[in-house]
Amino acid sequence: MPREFDPWSVVDVEDYGKLIEVFGIEPLTEDLLKELPFLNRYFARKIVFGHRDFQIIIKAIKNNEEYAVMSGIKPSGIFHLGSKMTAEQIIYLQKLSPKAKVFYAIADIEAWEDNGIPFEVSINYAIENVADLIALGIDLKRTYIYLQSREPHVMRYGYFFARGITYNLLEAIYGEKHLGMYMSAMVQVGDILLPQHPDFGGPKPTVVPVGADQDPHIRLTRDLAKKYARRHGFIPPAAVYHKLQWSLKGPGFKMSKRDPMGYITLKDPPSEVRRKLMNAYTGGRETAELQKKLGGEPEKCAIYQLAMYHIDDEAKVRRIYEECKQGLRLCGECKREVTELFIKWLIKHQEKREKNLSKAEEIIHEALSRG
Amino acid sequence: MPREFDPWSVVDVEDYGKLIEVFGIEPLTEDLLKELPFLNRYFARKIVFGHRDFQIIIKAIKNNEEYAVMSGIKPSGIFHLGSKMTAEQIIYLQKLSPKAKVFYAIADIEAWEDNGIPFEVSINYAIENVADLIALGIDLKRTYIYLQSREPHVMRYGYFFARGITYNLLEAIYGEKHLGMYMSAMVQVGDILLPQHPDFGGPKPTVVPVGADQDPHIRLTRDLAKKYARRHGFIPPAAVYHKLQWSLKGPGFKMSKRDPMGYITLKDPPSEVRRKLMNAYTGGRETAELQKKLGGEPEKCAIYQLAMYHIDDEAKVRRIYEECKQGLRLCGECKREVTELFIKWLIKHQEKREKNLSKAEEIIHEALSRG
Repeated sequence: MPREFDPWSVVDVEDYGKLIEVFGIEPLTEDLLKELPFLNRYFARKIVFGHRDFQIIIKAIKNNEEYAVMSGIKPSGIFHLGSKMTAEQIIYLQKLSPKAKVFYAIADIEAWEDNGIPFEVSINYAIENVADLIALGIDLKRTYIYLQSREPHVMRYGYFFARGITYNLLEAIYGEKHLGMYMSAMVQVGDILLPQHPDFGGPKPTVVPVGADQDPHIRLTRDLAKKYARRHGFIPPAAVYHKLQWSLKGPGFKMSKRDPMGYITLKDPPSEVRRKLMNAYTGGRETAELQKKLGGEPEKCAIYQLAMYHIDDEAKVRRIYEECKQGLRLCGECKREVTELFIKWLIKHQEKREKNLSKAEEIIHEALSRG
Repeated sequence: MPREFDPWSVVDVEDYGKLIEVFGIEPLTEDLLKELPFLNRYFARKIVFGHRDFQIIIKAIKNNEEYAVMSGIKPSGIFHLGSKMTAEQIIYLQKLSPKAKVFYAIADIEAWEDNGIPFEVSINYAIENVADLIALGIDLKRTYIYLQSREPHVMRYGYFFARGITYNLLEAIYGEKHLGMYMSAMVQVGDILLPQHPDFGGPKPTVVPVGADQDPHIRLTRDLAKKYARRHGFIPPAAVYHKLQWSLKGPGFKMSKRDPMGYITLKDPPSEVRRKLMNAYTGGRETAELQKKLGGEPEKCAIYQLAMYHIDDEAKVRRIYEECKQGLRLCGECKREVTELFIKWLIKHQEKREKNLSKAEEIIHEALSRG
């Protein structure tokens, strides 16, 4: 299939290419993907585009050896499409082997430092977030969920790794921030290395699924793992990088709570989601005439991106792409089709998340008792 | 008694006066001292020269109300004369009322950030330090001893108080330091406010005995207590300030581990202490003739300072001062007298600290189990 007809290559390819060239993220090659037992939507569609040291995970899977999948959520709101993507990545990486163990941080220290949300308030978001995580399919038997502010190992690691870190380095990575933000970054280094703490079984391969924007933090964590490798035996954590989904306003807009119309949470009422999607930016031409003549531009279309990122049915997504490109479908009908597909999924998900709220509450209350 | 004959006014009076004028430390007036049930050596001899809000403690004593005495030790070495001074201040402030409770922080996070001593190493110093504290007379029944790195409340407070603290402020207070040092400073804010945490009985008057050099940190802590007073009910902590004892090299030299001859630890063999003291800087004149004619200069004398800070017998210390001033004693005999007085105390102390090592070990092992 010629490159311009590849339905999985439409988002910001150039920008992500730069990350690979400049910062040394390695591309996810076909050869590497072939080694995986199966692919999820994000891997299959090149939304996951790069990695560092992912070989150590592939090797662990093959050898049936233990590895950790480490990620988390800042409990400052309800899961949105971006949190869903990270959660589904975690779940996929967990499903790849019965020996995978998930470590899931509720980043309540970050929610405090960044958003001023007190710990006793953020636990309410934490419960909602965990309910979504369960509804998306995490295997709780192989998952350790904790609150940063109640996990003494992680708080201690934050203090431990801070030794010798200069202001210049912090400013270069995170920009000019207040002390609490820098401290929160150190806690996140602790999060990522927690699976390798002796109390959690010691050094092991670890993979962190992250958005492409998180790479500077991954690099710092890997540097610190190397710095203390001799004393603590740390294996530098691997990472897989995914592209970011835009706001429903289209390319160039970041999804953000500050812009509710560009942003879908997994708790939004279906009627509201419908309204947002029907108002989303598309890759349509100025007139129906032109669209039929030139074809649409799915690479600029927030609706096509929603389909590509979130609709499982591959044949259907391919068809949408090709019909659009060939001028065979107009934006109105396309929006309706994608919207109804998404809402069908959403309604089912919302039933599941509702059912799992009490389980999530139980998990958070247990986490609260730890420190 | 004319001012120049006041044996308790000989150390750096001008410097400490500046602290009072510029930074708003209040002088410890006779009227205030009269309110105390009794004075210890440091209060009686004006070695404690100033305070902030000490009235809240005097009031608590009078009303038989609970108050906290908060202090600690960086476990990076054996107690020296300075640590002894702080410890004796804590013990005195505890003895002032049966309602006083001591919170004693083993600052192992600071020992890591500042000296690179790993937590698992600093506990060995911690045991030695606690043995000294017990030998000096702390009432363990009313004392909470903890390790910073094993006290989740304190680690969490560190992260909590860091929100909004700018680099400029940190640099102004602490100089240009690496991130870990700033984080350690935040943990110390947590230490000082720990007695007011709901899990420790909530807001209460607290007093922190500190060296005069610690005032910027006390001010920051008081500012943060005020910032969160509405939400957490904090009462800004009171402080009492003591003058610093010089190195045995004399005025202008700071006591420091890097200069072992200027520095006495409570574990030094008496023979070694004798050698250090016999080599100490004195306030003697160039010749015995001149000394008899002009009198000595106790205000410049490390031996006199040792006597004033550490020899309880007030009549004897006054006599040393007066005989020196009047040219009635020469440095050799004076050194011998003070040295033997101090060593007599030291030998007794070393017996006690030895006996209390296993108790101290028990306390630290309990502290280790907390987080």
